[in-house]
Amino acid sequence: MRIAMVGLGRMGANMVRRLIRDGHECVVHDISQDAVRRMEGEGAQGAGSLQDLVAALEPPRSVWLMLPAAITGDTVTELLGLLEGGDAIIDGGNSSYRDDIDRAEVAAVHDVDYVDCGTSGGVWGLERGYSLMIGGPDRAVQRLDPVFASLAPGLGAAERTPGRTGPVSRAEQGYLHCGPSGAGHFVKMVHNGIEYAIMAAYAEGLNVIRGAGVGKHQSDADAETAPLREPRYYPYDSVDLADVAEVWRRGSVIGSWLLDLTAEALVADPQLEQFTGRVSDSGEGRWTSIAAIEEGVPAPLLTAALYSRFASRGSELFANKVESAQRKEFGGHDEKPAAS
Amino acid sequence: MRIAMVGLGRMGANMVRRLIRDGHECVVHDISQDAVRRMEGEGAQGAGSLQDLVAALEPPRSVWLMLPAAITGDTVTELLGLLEGGDAIIDGGNSSYRDDIDRAEVAAVHDVDYVDCGTSGGVWGLERGYSLMIGGPDRAVQRLDPVFASLAPGLGAAERTPGRTGPVSRAEQGYLHCGPSGAGHFVKMVHNGIEYAIMAAYAEGLNVIRGAGVGKHQSDADAETAPLREPRYYPYDSVDLADVAEVWRRGSVIGSWLLDLTAEALVADPQLEQFTGRVSDSGEGRWTSIAAIEEGVPAPLLTAALYSRFASRGSELFANKVESAQRKEFGGHDEKPAAS
Amino acid sequence: MRIAMVGLGRMGANMVRRLIRDGHECVVHDISQDAVRRMEGEGAQGAGSLQDLVAALEPPRSVWLMLPAAITGDTVTELLGLLEGGDAIIDGGNSSYRDDIDRAEVAAVHDVDYVDCGTSGGVWGLERGYSLMIGGPDRAVQRLDPVFASLAPGLGAAERTPGRTGPVSRAEQGYLHCGPSGAGHFVKMVHNGIEYAIMAAYAEGLNVIRGAGVGKHQSDADAETAPLREPRYYPYDSVDLADVAEVWRRGSVIGSWLLDLTAEALVADPQLEQFTGRVSDSGEGRWTSIAAIEEGVPAPLLTAALYSRFASRGSELFANKVESAQRKEFGGHDEKPAAS
Amino acid sequence: MRIAMVGLGRMGANMVRRLIRDGHECVVHDISQDAVRRMEGEGAQGAGSLQDLVAALEPPRSVWLMLPAAITGDTVTELLGLLEGGDAIIDGGNSSYRDDIDRAEVAAVHDVDYVDCGTSGGVWGLERGYSLMIGGPDRAVQRLDPVFASLAPGLGAAERTPGRTGPVSRAEQGYLHCGPSGAGHFVKMVHNGIEYAIMAAYAEGLNVIRGAGVGKHQSDADAETAPLREPRYYPYDSVDLADVAEVWRRGSVIGSWLLDLTAEALVADPQLEQFTGRVSDSGEGRWTSIAAIEEGVPAPLLTAALYSRFASRGSELFANKVESAQRKEFGGHDEKPAAS
Repeated sequence: MRIAMVGLGRMGANMVRRLIRDGHECVVHDISQDAVRRMEGEGAQGAGSLQDLVAALEPPRSVWLMLPAAITGDTVTELLGLLEGGDAIIDGGNSSYRDDIDRAEVAAVHDVDYVDCGTSGGVWGLERGYSLMIGGPDRAVQRLDPVFASLAPGLGAAERTPGRTGPVSRAEQGYLHCGPSGAGHFVKMVHNGIEYAIMAAYAEGLNVIRGAGVGKHQSDADAETAPLREPRYYPYDSVDLADVAEVWRRGSVIGSWLLDLTAEALVADPQLEQFTGRVSDSGEGRWTSIAAIEEGVPAPLLTAALYSRFASRGSELFANKVESAQRKEFGGHDEKPAAS
Repeated sequence: MRIAMVGLGRMGANMVRRLIRDGHECVVHDISQDAVRRMEGEGAQGAGSLQDLVAALEPPRSVWLMLPAAITGDTVTELLGLLEGGDAIIDGGNSSYRDDIDRAEVAAVHDVDYVDCGTSGGVWGLERGYSLMIGGPDRAVQRLDPVFASLAPGLGAAERTPGRTGPVSRAEQGYLHCGPSGAGHFVKMVHNGIEYAIMAAYAEGLNVIRGAGVGKHQSDADAETAPLREPRYYPYDSVDLADVAEVWRRGSVIGSWLLDLTAEALVADPQLEQFTGRVSDSGEGRWTSIAAIEEGVPAPLLTAALYSRFASRGSELFANKVESAQRKEFGGHDEKPAAS
Repeated sequence: MRIAMVGLGRMGANMVRRLIRDGHECVVHDISQDAVRRMEGEGAQGAGSLQDLVAALEPPRSVWLMLPAAITGDTVTELLGLLEGGDAIIDGGNSSYRDDIDRAEVAAVHDVDYVDCGTSGGVWGLERGYSLMIGGPDRAVQRLDPVFASLAPGLGAAERTPGRTGPVSRAEQGYLHCGPSGAGHFVKMVHNGIEYAIMAAYAEGLNVIRGAGVGKHQSDADAETAPLREPRYYPYDSVDLADVAEVWRRGSVIGSWLLDLTAEALVADPQLEQFTGRVSDSGEGRWTSIAAIEEGVPAPLLTAALYSRFASRGSELFANKVESAQRKEFGGHDEKPAAS
Repeated sequence: MRIAMVGLGRMGANMVRRLIRDGHECVVHDISQDAVRRMEGEGAQGAGSLQDLVAALEPPRSVWLMLPAAITGDTVTELLGLLEGGDAIIDGGNSSYRDDIDRAEVAAVHDVDYVDCGTSGGVWGLERGYSLMIGGPDRAVQRLDPVFASLAPGLGAAERTPGRTGPVSRAEQGYLHCGPSGAGHFVKMVHNGIEYAIMAAYAEGLNVIRGAGVGKHQSDADAETAPLREPRYYPYDSVDLADVAEVWRRGSVIGSWLLDLTAEALVADPQLEQFTGRVSDSGEGRWTSIAAIEEGVPAPLLTAALYSRFASRGSELFANKVESAQRKEFGGHDEKPAAS
């Protein structure tokens, strides 16, 4: 079918490519004329403005947004002035599901269907397909089914789950209508919360293995630091972490795609020296923990993963200084300098 | 090659089957005569005692133990009285790596090689192969290479990691000599610590989605409980969790074998009504957190996963009572009864 | 000075008493006529309605609200229709500081000063005085100074902090103008977040002491549960927790008012048998963690305390069931029944 | 009574002073002759060696050790060669309770009573008295009662707990015989675990208040970072933290000695610029978490406080690098540089 894509960054451009491959007609727009021209060269129809883009579609129109969260709102507002009843806007970016709920209400006033679509797959999506978590009105979601089906990985991307029989469901093809407006981004948000935690789980575990030679190197034993009681149990100072990640990839309980990537990174740079360890977070992890809190549902790991990202960027520093100050007050303890 | 297996439970029996399939000769023993007879029916040579078992081998002998951790120590002691210099004991169970270090020292006095082998794969190992994390003396580890190779999944079990070129390493076949005595069980221990955390990550995330309809059902708004500020953001009371797990299996960043199993469990029993939620832990998770603490390396997620298992069995109850008592003291707050 | 109090629950009534003691004139209102009459008997002037209450004051009027958070908003709206420019509303309850920000904007349109006042002290405030954390416009905060001074504990409630010299500040008397609208409730909110954590710290610690006899009683050592490696280090099955709390009250680093209360509760009911362990949370703890998340500042303890309250009420159950289901899938592990 | 003190550091010297004030006779020893001479100047009897020290006592002798944990073991061994049946060694330092259990067994062979005494009070103990948590044989603990009573703060140090009536117990005077060998250090260990958590609770809370102006300063809104949804709720960029700590000292629920010290530190150095934020840990916090894990009792806050100390010293760095590497692999995300 014919569909417009606004935003031709890494994700948007690859999605257009995947749609074109599958026979869809794509009208594309981006603030970068170069990006538009590049996609024209790959078979898309370029549009110089949102107005042109809308004009290049037939009702009921479908305009897919693949934009930074900070820009999506204004673009939706502008589009609502250009679209007409029965048209649909699909937000495939990383918006907060709360914005979806708010925007869907406004769009409904214009009889425009607002569809939110959480999209996972990253730079690998062109090849592997995208996992799509969809929220919004049935009317648009059903109409867009061929688009979702083309973007999603399809049944063959994994073995069929035992117990799943009969006709293949959409979930089994890699896309799911999760519920009303915002439900798609809500499920995607939690997906990312889980992702943060799984990443941190491997990271912590590898760090524990990396520290397992402490018994061989411990030296300080002053009034401030208790000696390791049994250093003989920490003699492992030369375990090869890249090999450990590799061996876990086959036959172990913790095999995963994130582990595959971890193994790849450790082969390329065993000490990860190219990284400084400042880990960004893009919003979904925060929102997941906030949802847990507002629901009254405990999520200790998801939140711990988030907090560890915060701390990786230095924001725990003042708290640490408070503790140093307290120690000095009650025990006269001076801070120890960093090991040289 | 010829090897003995002591302990024919779920894991031990399947490992013998996998070895026999690959042409190895297995001498087997178990306290259950039935278990021995069953394996005899599948091509193994039974032994009525450890003495018979040792007698059925040629030096240098190899005796693999697949026993509950609580029994392994006594069996090793008994075996050391039967074996001779150059022989090897392999502990493939869930022993603490500290016991390996202690036992290897004793075995070394007898010139017996003590090999520890962390084994992952569970009930699926017969079919998928076992991930093997090995510690101990080179002499025995090298001699046992054909056995490890047969038990491990082999290169084909996963795509080759980009950046891995040239001859296929052991890690790529699914087994790894991690280091000296205990290193195998240490790496396996951390593997299980990670496993607990990944399991909990999915569990927490699904629970957050499950609670996303709280805005529709919230009622209490008394002096003790603040009302949800914006209930309109929690309207999702009918997201299908089995479908969510399914959609994440294809194309998403959090695909994994544990997710596959989660999806399977949710298809079979969407509300998981057959479970009471008491989650056991088998030792490795505890030891991983203890190692993190003794190394001075933070592992907040691994430990949170562990503590949540403890709490699932009721051990946080007294702490909760203390808090209820404190609230009553300072605020006159009575506990609220459970919702009926 | 003359001031109105709306809401004569535990807190409101005691605050009126403390104000009257100090020579202030109090006009009081409550939905309960009995509550009004009781305070009339103690020297307050009763008002049957908000209209009567406002009529009984001279401009610039001051109306203090001590109401459940769920009711405060409607009361403010009603009052804004009755008050005039230059008057002030003080919200001394447990409102979200976000509501303060929103309401202050609306009040400002009426030229009414909206003052938020986080109030700590619980049932002990009548005797000890209340710690007051205040936000809002200078005009009203300065005018209300005599009221705050009467409610607060005063300098004598604690020894002067070394380094504090010269004239006694308001903070040293127990009340503080923290900043613009909402700042008072923000600081009070974090105060409660800290409170949850301190309570949980004692609770966890006492629970660890309570479990220190596990080495004497451990029995199970099957394939699922690793035996305690060194049970001899857990022989303490008769430590008297009430005495422990008592001994910590004098000379130790962890002395505090919450510890005093804990000691009192343990003397009265050493096993805390009157409690079921369901711990409520009243909003501030949640909002503190949400603020931490939105600020990008890690608060692992504050959030852990909150999550443990959630879990005390059963909301972690489904997550635990997911883990049980996963264990059954990959390892064939059945759940173990609760110890009888 | 007559008692020997070995180790005249900050703690040991002050304890001797407090004992002398109360009429006890103290024989003292330290590796530093200066330290010995200083105490001689204050009324103690110096001893140049352990041999001299033992010779200066009458049986049954009492030798109190106030030494770094790393040295205590050797000193005990040496003393056991000098003492005789019925004598007592008291370890008042920060030993692991496990060492107490081990050493008490050895001492018992010599019929020497080994008493462990967890001591809290820091540099303030001379003035305030020391909270003493005692383990070991009744014989010695009873004989040493006058010493414990002199060191402890006494009943007057806090108001009597409501519900405590009749004769004043030892716990109410600030010392407690907690149980058999190791019980004193066990209770002291948990005390320190709680201390870490209370310190961190204040530190986290103050850090959240410190970050409450983020809505005024936020700037970045790119594809990597979601914008703050409602910056208007984070306008508080000038809350005075020293005043906040001060106001909480009077009438609030979270008043404590640690808060007093925090308030003092913030008056002296409002931004805590003299500190780098590297927080040491001296063993007890680690051992508390290990005990929680081995007992199967959750202690999420106590462990979070510990891990945050570890991270303050940089040990989480490699884990963070793993996460950065994973993000680069799956999303092509480069690390963002630290804000300049």
